[in-house]
Parts: sequence; structure tokens; C-alpha cells
Amino acid sequence: MIDKLIENIKKTNAPIVVGLDPMMKFVPEHIRQAAFREYGETLEGAAEAIWQYNKGIVDAVYDLIPAVKPQIAMYEQFGIPGMIAFKKTVDYCKEKGLVVIGDVKRGDIGSTSEAYAVAHLGKVQVGSKAYGAFDEDFATVNPYLGSDGVKPFLKVCKEEKKGIFVLVKTSNPSSGELQDRLVDGKPIYELVGEQVAAWGEECMGSGSYSYVGAVVGATYPEQGRIMRKVMPKAFILVPGYGAQGGKGADLVHFFNEDGLGAIVNSSRGIIAAYQQEQYAHFGEQGYADAARAAVVAMREDIAEALNNR
Amino acid sequence: MIDKLIENIKKTNAPIVVGLDPMMKFVPEHIRQAAFREYGETLEGAAEAIWQYNKGIVDAVYDLIPAVKPQIAMYEQFGIPGMIAFKKTVDYCKEKGLVVIGDVKRGDIGSTSEAYAVAHLGKVQVGSKAYGAFDEDFATVNPYLGSDGVKPFLKVCKEEKKGIFVLVKTSNPSSGELQDRLVDGKPIYELVGEQVAAWGEECMGSGSYSYVGAVVGATYPEQGRIMRKVMPKAFILVPGYGAQGGKGADLVHFFNEDGLGAIVNSSRGIIAAYQQEQYAHFGEQGYADAARAAVVAMREDIAEALNNR
Repeated sequence: MIDKLIENIKKTNAPIVVGLDPMMKFVPEHIRQAAFREYGETLEGAAEAIWQYNKGIVDAVYDLIPAVKPQIAMYEQFGIPGMIAFKKTVDYCKEKGLVVIGDVKRGDIGSTSEAYAVAHLGKVQVGSKAYGAFDEDFATVNPYLGSDGVKPFLKVCKEEKKGIFVLVKTSNPSSGELQDRLVDGKPIYELVGEQVAAWGEECMGSGSYSYVGAVVGATYPEQGRIMRKVMPKAFILVPGYGAQGGKGADLVHFFNEDGLGAIVNSSRGIIAAYQQEQYAHFGEQGYADAARAAVVAMREDIAEALNNR
Repeated sequence: MIDKLIENIKKTNAPIVVGLDPMMKFVPEHIRQAAFREYGETLEGAAEAIWQYNKGIVDAVYDLIPAVKPQIAMYEQFGIPGMIAFKKTVDYCKEKGLVVIGDVKRGDIGSTSEAYAVAHLGKVQVGSKAYGAFDEDFATVNPYLGSDGVKPFLKVCKEEKKGIFVLVKTSNPSSGELQDRLVDGKPIYELVGEQVAAWGEECMGSGSYSYVGAVVGATYPEQGRIMRKVMPKAFILVPGYGAQGGKGADLVHFFNEDGLGAIVNSSRGIIAAYQQEQYAHFGEQGYADAARAAVVAMREDIAEALNNR
């Protein structure tokens, strides 16, 4: 799947992933009202609203981008109907040829981590049959429990040709509370990054990248520069661009000389672009066109930064 | 909810939580076959099998125990039908008066962490209505992302009178890879424990315990002893008893002098007791009675250890 991700990036010339994190306050009134008319103000109504909203965005941007990253929490909060909307979104994006990164941040131990890996990347055995449950292409994984938590994911990735992104240095202000603490003079995120590089050695795609990637926030460009060297073969998933403050110029350190090795996420900066002054002229009805315009602007911002480095 | 947990522990005289982690290989043949006859070898069939299996166990043990801990990964791997079985299990256990600890190990940042908190402990707003999605009583939370990831849970806990258990020192062999690393001479799990104690200061139940608890594995009794002192007001959820190797005598350090402060989890040791030599005479058909016998034995093991300290 790392090969498909790279192929999609080359095809679109855009190392961009659109975060499908549909908060209700982003969903235009006309979509919300239509869903509530059909299902009432229920969890089903909310799930229908976010699904229709997502579908509009995907239809408007799929030809410009290599990948999407639905954030499962935004669906999980709407219970079973929300999880159905998540699954519909995953399936629809895959039909459109997009690589789907499930932002699930799962992580547990042993057989439990294996169950999460199976849930999101693998197939579960039921009697003589096997089924994919949510069946994303990549999943994000939390490393706090150590390699017991990560190795079951690697096993499933090998079998299914899928991939993971391990949380290394997250984009939030308090990420340093734990991740920046020094162990023998080295920050914890760097230790985790070294593990990512080691896990990746045995998990190589057909080119020069492994399918064990890392999450490093755009809000920490200096750390991105260091981690780029620590994990030369890992793809870096970079959240925090746009709404969280990361800029195109901050991103160059996350890429390798080949122009690859990073994929930059923007969520509300794209999907709720119509709520920003810059794109307000699209209006609520034009939210999907606004998202498309925001993708084009983001692509240019990153291309310019990479050209100027 | 911490008050109810303590009340339930006093009532049952058993600081025990039964881990409802239904792997298919634990489910007796007759339950599996009945489910497959009705739904085929499908995700629905698997979900029906684990739900019926759970129900049998809960019916057999609910009067002996204060709480259950369903491990969501074991349901998530069966997709939407699995999530429905999870929700049915949560609801059924609550009807039986049990405290439900959702072992979800979620953790993200800002609005995403809030969405997880809402999904598992709170209510989500849909237009003018509000709904609980999965609606457990407690949830387990991963601290790798720092306080940005935990505070949204605290907010929801305050509003809804619920609680969390933060991963501090997990029970698995490789938990030390990250958690034991020394920062200024102190292991990381202790730093996280100090945060748990600080978060708990503002989140007190009506007695002497906070509703911000911690997870510390039974497999690390020495660390349990230290963490008991670092977090005197935190309830400690102790996994790793039984199948993972923790014994009654290892557990005394996790309790305070009042005999409270810890709740010990056993999963397969209870729910798959019939597969152990000691309880094999119950047979597959008697799996629920075997679980009851295993709960009684565990209760005695812990009581004896506490009496002998």
C-alpha cells in the first residue's frame, strides 16, 4: 500500500492528505436539515449528515489528492450510526482510488493489539470465512505500550500489504510533556523514531520506503528535520498544517531530497474552507468547491516551499 | 461513578473486574453453532455468538462482582455487528447494576479527544437533542499525547460524573521499552502517575478517591507499591492477574490500608475458565458456571493475600 500511496502522490503531484473529520459545526445547514428531515434529530440523522457532507467533499477533490484520513473519533461519537458512516466513507474513498489512512490511534498489547490490527487493516476469521471489518489501507498507532503493541500490526501489514503510522511527535501544544522528555540526553520522540526505523527495516515496499511510517506534527519543523534523518526510509504523516499553525515553509524539512517521504494533512483547513474569510464567497452551498480551492492553494503552497529549498 | 464503584466493591467484598474480552476461541461450540445457524458464518453471526457468550457469563457472575471491563478491540474486529454487540454488552451490564469500564485506550488531542470522551462517557449534541453513544461508566485513556489528550476526558467526566483510568505502567513484557525509561532519574510511568495524581486533585468523588484512576499491571508489583504512594487518591485498575502471571500475593501493594484503591482485572482466567484443567469438569456447556467458580476462587485468593499482609 506504500507503493500505491507513492504512485498516487506522483500522479497528483500533491503530497496531501485531506482529513475527513466531520464536526457537526462544519456541516452546511442544507445538508444537516435534509438529513434531519429524513431521520429526525437522531444519531442516524447526524450520521447521514456527516456522510453526505463527506461525499460532497470527496467528489470535489478526489482527482487532486492521493489520500484521505478519516478521524474515527468524529464518527464514534455518533455511536453505531456514526461507525456505519465511517465505514461508508472508507469504502467510498477506496472506490474513488484514494488511499485511506484510518486515524484511529489504536494501541494495546498482544492479542488485543492484533484484534485492532485485524479490525482496521486485516481480515477476521468467522468459522470458515474471513471478513474485513473496517478495512482501511493504513492506520495510526500509539506506541506507549512498547513493541508488544506494534508488532501485531506489523504482522497484519505484511500479510495484507498495508501500513501504519506510529505516533512519534504529535502536533499539539502539550505533546512535549511526555514526548520531549530526555532519556540519556535524547528526547523520547527520537527513541520512538529509532524504533520506527528499526521496525521498518523488515517492512519495505518495492521502492526505498517502508510501510512503517511516523506521525510528526508540522508545528514542530525543527524536530521534523531531525526525525527525517533518524528515519530516512519512513514516510512521515504531518498533521498540524493550516488550522493548527503549520505553514508550507515549515514543511520542507519533512521531505527527502527525492521530494517524497512526507504527506501533509489538512482537515478543517480544507473541509471547512467555506467558513474561512478567504473562501467565504463560495457560501455554504459551495462548501465542496471551497474545499477544492483550498486543496489547490495548499498544493501550491507546498510546491513553492519545496522549489525554494 | 467512583462512588458507585466503591459501593459495589464494598457490597460484593470483591475488588474484582471481569474482562469481557470474547475471543472466538473461547466461545463454546454450542453457542457458536447456534449463532451461525441463525446468521451464517458472517460478522453478524460472530457478533451474536460473542453477545450470547457474554450474556451467559454476566448472568452467572453479576451478583459476585462490582464491575466488568469489555475490551472494545475484541468487538471492533467484527465491524459494525461487533460494535452493536459491544453496545448491547455495555447496556446489559449496566442493567444488572455493574459498573462498566470501557477498555478503549483512546487518546488524541483537543476536539478529537473530546469526541472520544463524548463517544464513550458523554452525550453528543444532535440539533436540539443529546444522545449517549456507547455510554460506559469509565474509559481507559492513553497519555502519550500529553494533557491536551486527557483534559477533554476530565471535562466530560465532571459533567457526567464518570471516570477514567490512565495507562501508567501496562502489564505486558515490553511495557518498559518506553514506560521505564528514566527522565531525570525517574521512570516515565512515575511521571505519568504524578500527572494522574495532579489531575485527580480537582476530580474527587464524595469520599477519599478521585475519578481519575490509573492502570498498573499486576505483573509489576514493585512498581505498584511505588505508584500506590505517588497516587494515594487514585484507584488503580490492575490487569495481568491470572493468565498473564500476576498472583494474589503480588496484589497487596496496589491497595491502600483501607482495603480499597485497587480493582483487579481477570479476563480469560474467568471467561475461559472452562478451558483450564482446574475447571474442565464443568465442560463447554457449563462455561458460565466455571466462570462463577473462577470468580469465587479469585475473590478468595485476593482476600487471603490482603489478610496476610
